[in-house]
Amino acid sequence: MRVSIIGGGTIDDETATIAESVGEAVATRGHTVVCGGLSGVMEAACRGAQTAGGETIGILPTDRLEDANEYVTTPIATGIGHARNPIVVMNGDAVIAIDGAGGTLSEIGFATVFEKPIAGINTHDVPYIHQVSSAAEAVTYIEEAVETAD
Amino acid sequence: MRVSIIGGGTIDDETATIAESVGEAVATRGHTVVCGGLSGVMEAACRGAQTAGGETIGILPTDRLEDANEYVTTPIATGIGHARNPIVVMNGDAVIAIDGAGGTLSEIGFATVFEKPIAGINTHDVPYIHQVSSAAEAVTYIEEAVETAD
Amino acid sequence: MRVSIIGGGTIDDETATIAESVGEAVATRGHTVVCGGLSGVMEAACRGAQTAGGETIGILPTDRLEDANEYVTTPIATGIGHARNPIVVMNGDAVIAIDGAGGTLSEIGFATVFEKPIAGINTHDVPYIHQVSSAAEAVTYIEEAVETAD
Amino acid sequence: MRVSIIGGGTIDDETATIAESVGEAVATRGHTVVCGGLSGVMEAACRGAQTAGGETIGILPTDRLEDANEYVTTPIATGIGHARNPIVVMNGDAVIAIDGAGGTLSEIGFATVFEKPIAGINTHDVPYIHQVSSAAEAVTYIEEAVETAD
Repeated sequence: MRVSIIGGGTIDDETATIAESVGEAVATRGHTVVCGGLSGVMEAACRGAQTAGGETIGILPTDRLEDANEYVTTPIATGIGHARNPIVVMNGDAVIAIDGAGGTLSEIGFATVFEKPIAGINTHDVPYIHQVSSAAEAVTYIEEAVETAD
Repeated sequence: MRVSIIGGGTIDDETATIAESVGEAVATRGHTVVCGGLSGVMEAACRGAQTAGGETIGILPTDRLEDANEYVTTPIATGIGHARNPIVVMNGDAVIAIDGAGGTLSEIGFATVFEKPIAGINTHDVPYIHQVSSAAEAVTYIEEAVETAD
Repeated sequence: MRVSIIGGGTIDDETATIAESVGEAVATRGHTVVCGGLSGVMEAACRGAQTAGGETIGILPTDRLEDANEYVTTPIATGIGHARNPIVVMNGDAVIAIDGAGGTLSEIGFATVFEKPIAGINTHDVPYIHQVSSAAEAVTYIEEAVETAD
Repeated sequence: MRVSIIGGGTIDDETATIAESVGEAVATRGHTVVCGGLSGVMEAACRGAQTAGGETIGILPTDRLEDANEYVTTPIATGIGHARNPIVVMNGDAVIAIDGAGGTLSEIGFATVFEKPIAGINTHDVPYIHQVSSAAEAVTYIEEAVETAD
């Protein structure tokens, strides 16, 4: 399946380590990473997925494929700015949120609208999110949630 | 100024009364209402604004102007679905959130991205929002916040 | 009704004179101008409409209301770049095309998709357009086409 | 490179044969097909690419991945309707237009805006398009045009 990994564009080292481990866990279990294609959590998650030989789709706000981070295997330019946020979420079967500010909160809102299961690590404290504390736990949660929903 | 009023599309009577009083207070103070143009909080806020002779802009998700509620004075069709949410927020100088679920949460996220002050009544409990308990209090808060920001 | 006026963002004096007369004719007949809100044909048409005391809606590609030309009475920021082109056309009951390059051609294409009547002055030579040579002729054509369609 | 193949959603057998041969030629030369993901020219081009073992990206107007034709290898849901047209063109290094009506014309307009070379077969007669009469000729033209532009 596809897993949308969302989170801040500017992050500290600890968050980068978490995002990388989430990307790696998602790819190791055979899933494709979908993200916003830029820096921070997006880049770290793609780097982690690459370690495991996984695929990564980056839905960019700009109209330039070159703006994708170097670990994105399929960049998609949109040119629609923040209006690409629902598209990031819409293209995943489930969502993992890590850290993040307003943009991430908008994506959590859309995940609720589109009824996608969401696991969260060190992120917004809103009721829609199943809070977990490790990459493995996040992937296990969404796998079960998607299977149950089918 | 323009005030984006956001909130649920399906609401109970109490919430409708609040949204109507917010729309009326915004219009009475000479501001234009911006909203998503549909039902629920959007419709009640527009109805309240109309009572006070105010203007209302409805940014619709569909491509049909006819989908606007009857109290919208300037409907704008977009045809871009949920991707119109950032546009609702972008066109206000400030935001008042009332009730609401995932779509409203996405708009609160965008309000943070665009650095708009947000007052909230019976809505999501997230740190970005200044929680108030009346229409008058909401309008006073955003007027002061916008003035301070200038 | 609403009339979408589309055309080039960079124009010569003769084209500006035509666009201004079209904006004025549209407003004089009691219609609202819809346009992309920027310079060139968009600005000249809005200036013409203002002369006649008309209303003008400018659907901007950027996320800044300040980017609207000074003759727009209702600016709408979108932040979605060229993806706002279908929205410009969608919000008119009919379209008048003046001059223009690729962006205008994209809007002519959308006008066809949305089945809006199109009058054209010194613009692309494509079959969908009813070519005319004056502002009065353009407005008369679209008024009759919209009336017939109803 | 990536080649955006654009054209009508409802086509006759002859056009389907042409679109299939274009998709096959693009994939045989090692390029990825980008298209709108739906039926008609889009589906025939993807089917042709599949014959040659190529990759196909389908940028859908709807919010449902299931709406992609069965030959799309990487579907991208957008939920933004016709506003996805510029995105189809933006993600190709060059464009091949086959047949088509208003939607295709809008994409030809955007190809001009984004300065992408365009080859056309039995399509709109506008100056921006290099008209050709075979799949091989179309691919040769855009390969040379992209190489020259670099």
